[in-house]
Amino acid sequence: MEVRIEEARRFMEQSLMAVQTPESEAKAHADLLVHADIVGHFSHGLNRLEFYINDILSKATVPTAKPVILKETEATAWVDGCNALGATVSNFAMDLAIQKAKKAGVGWVAAKRSNHFGMAGYWALKAEREGLIGMAFTNTSPIMVPTRAKKSALGTNPIAMAAPATGGDSIVVDMATTAVAVGKIEVQMHKDEPIPEGWALGPDGKLTTDSKVAFDTANLLPLGGLEETSGYKGYGLGAMVEVFCSGLSGSKSTHNIRGWEVNSQGGPPDLGHCFVAIDPECFAPGFAERIADCLHHWRSMEPVDPSLPVLAPGDKERINSEETTKRGTIIYAQKQYERYFNIAKRIGVQPMETV
Amino acid sequence: MEVRIEEARRFMEQSLMAVQTPESEAKAHADLLVHADIVGHFSHGLNRLEFYINDILSKATVPTAKPVILKETEATAWVDGCNALGATVSNFAMDLAIQKAKKAGVGWVAAKRSNHFGMAGYWALKAEREGLIGMAFTNTSPIMVPTRAKKSALGTNPIAMAAPATGGDSIVVDMATTAVAVGKIEVQMHKDEPIPEGWALGPDGKLTTDSKVAFDTANLLPLGGLEETSGYKGYGLGAMVEVFCSGLSGSKSTHNIRGWEVNSQGGPPDLGHCFVAIDPECFAPGFAERIADCLHHWRSMEPVDPSLPVLAPGDKERINSEETTKRGTIIYAQKQYERYFNIAKRIGVQPMETV
Ligand SMILES: NC(=O)c1ccc[n+]([C@@H]2O[C@H](COP(=O)([O-])OP(=O)(O)OC[C@H]3O[C@@H](n4cnc5c(N)ncnc54)[C@H](O)[C@@H]3O)[C@@H](O)[C@H]2O)c1
Ligand SMILES: NC(=O)c1ccc[n+]([C@@H]2O[C@H](COP(=O)([O-])OP(=O)(O)OC[C@H]3O[C@@H](n4cnc5c(N)ncnc54)[C@H](O)[C@@H]3O)[C@@H](O)[C@H]2O)c1
Repeated sequence: MEVRIEEARRFMEQSLMAVQTPESEAKAHADLLVHADIVGHFSHGLNRLEFYINDILSKATVPTAKPVILKETEATAWVDGCNALGATVSNFAMDLAIQKAKKAGVGWVAAKRSNHFGMAGYWALKAEREGLIGMAFTNTSPIMVPTRAKKSALGTNPIAMAAPATGGDSIVVDMATTAVAVGKIEVQMHKDEPIPEGWALGPDGKLTTDSKVAFDTANLLPLGGLEETSGYKGYGLGAMVEVFCSGLSGSKSTHNIRGWEVNSQGGPPDLGHCFVAIDPECFAPGFAERIADCLHHWRSMEPVDPSLPVLAPGDKERINSEETTKRGTIIYAQKQYERYFNIAKRIGVQPMETV
Repeated sequence: MEVRIEEARRFMEQSLMAVQTPESEAKAHADLLVHADIVGHFSHGLNRLEFYINDILSKATVPTAKPVILKETEATAWVDGCNALGATVSNFAMDLAIQKAKKAGVGWVAAKRSNHFGMAGYWALKAEREGLIGMAFTNTSPIMVPTRAKKSALGTNPIAMAAPATGGDSIVVDMATTAVAVGKIEVQMHKDEPIPEGWALGPDGKLTTDSKVAFDTANLLPLGGLEETSGYKGYGLGAMVEVFCSGLSGSKSTHNIRGWEVNSQGGPPDLGHCFVAIDPECFAPGFAERIADCLHHWRSMEPVDPSLPVLAPGDKERINSEETTKRGTIIYAQKQYERYFNIAKRIGVQPMETV
């Protein structure tokens, strides 16, 4: 189902406003979701809107809340998200980090009592557009199994870093610290196909390639897979994200965070985020040129398979974004479109018009 | 060959002093190497001394050089390592980051024109001992193959993060962003055993399990392995390290760095490092308690194999360190001991005494 980008945006904004989100925050949150659909991370676009709406309806999220600064120095801030929407907290906190970086060279901000903030890379890019290095981290619900363990204790705890290069180019690293996100397992399950070794464990704590078993167990392996291929490094990175997020902000640690289901009634999730901005101007001149040289070098490398060119981190999303913007439309799966058609009726919003 | 810890230290110090390293810097560098041997990362201990000595003799490294600050703000500094020893540059730069974190809440320091700085975790721990979160990054010689490429372009580019917990406990993440270091392949080759899939590529750019082929090709896979198991995330992390190191400091980018062999004659390597310190006191109270709670939770998890308990990041090195310190000695391989016996004779230093 093909929907014009601006029509998808209109629908997301109005849906959030229909559940008492102020216009500015509905716009901010819709921009986050539309961005994900445009760059091809559909799991974090329209797909998530229902969760946000339900979290507002169950009062887990307070769409009118405003984050506050609890403590600050020239380069740091500790923020209470006050259960506001993830985008409300993240815009507030990343704006602070950017301001601080422009004055002190670096801004490091941790926020507690927040909600799901969508694509981590979206927040890192906010700083990148200001000529800064941006970073964003969040903890999530437990789903990653620490190396050697049987059950999950950490989340997909993503790491994002964006750095500007000359000519409007950039490096964007934006990744869950698990080998893959659950969404990829779901896709294989719906196609009735197996998953590669190294993605997930079965209920016995052993590798599984059965996508249905993997989906039902929801025990993801950290990046790297099992211990012999250094899966403990992905676990270590997830732990690092935990230090920056719950450690610094005082939010819940992932092992104490409730699951995040469509009909979650567990109250405010109390997620922790961390936002960092760094001003390359405080270091060696020529930063953007050096980043451009790296990008050029990597992209010019000879590929193993001539039909699969070597990409730089961020290229996949850039290519998707260019295609989507050129076409002017987002293509949603029929089922998803129908789900939101029904939600529209339920909350009294005009359903999305297709082209 | 069993050598008392203090005897190994004496030998390293005197060896560096024999090639005109000032006593303070010889002591600093020996402490870095002894630490690696104590925690069980033998590849980065005595094993590296010969490289450092040869780099001094070939004038690639200037043991009497002193790093200087080129630019600074309250929270940042840009340092010129002036081709000093890696430990000289790293002590200078991490001390600066620590001072800045104590005043501004965070200190972010990038250094160019440096030399090999050993275990990244050693530098992160320097900040951790001050009650701060410490981080250290470095670029290295090209050996990591970007996803889809045939040849290497990034290094093992390690990431280290250490955070204090109550009771003297800590989380220490210290890892190359490749699946494994070359040393692990070397070990398998010497045992005439294969390597697991996911460590390295052969000359055709395809996976190899032949340890000799992998060692000779020296094309390591990024953490995560091939593309289907998200190896591009390890590549992305390596790129992030490049941004922080060569990007900020203006050192060479990894794809322009010379190889680092025992007899390297390539001149100063011009490596870039990045050091970060963050003061948890500037954020939510109870940081060390929350980190301790995570450590406790992870370590108490039920393991898949009862003989392999779940570890927290840093535990392996802690356990090795306790064993070594209790025994009071480091156990070196016979061959390695002999190599250093000969080096001792060559540079006019008393060889290590065994117990
Ligand atoms: N808010 C949350 O709780 C949460 C949790 C997890 C993930 N996420 C988001 O989900 C999204 C998807 O995460 P993911 O881990 O599935 O991402 P992914 O596996 O799609 O990897 C994305 C990263 O890898 C890069 N990449 C992909 N292929 C590449 C190649 N061949 N060469 C070089 N680089 C390549 C991309 O440019 C990007 O930086 C991200 O935006 C992430 O922030 C959010
Ligand atoms: N200076 C350089 O150029 C350079 C380059 C690469 C690596 N290094 C150093 O080499 C050393 C080894 O690197 P590596 O990548 O081979 O490290 P590694 O594979 O031994 O992994 C080490 C990390 O993983 C953790 N770990 C190991 N097993 C674990 C488990 N079961 N559960 C939880 N955590 C576990 C360790 O505590 C540590 O944090 C590091 O000190 C690194 O800094 C230096």
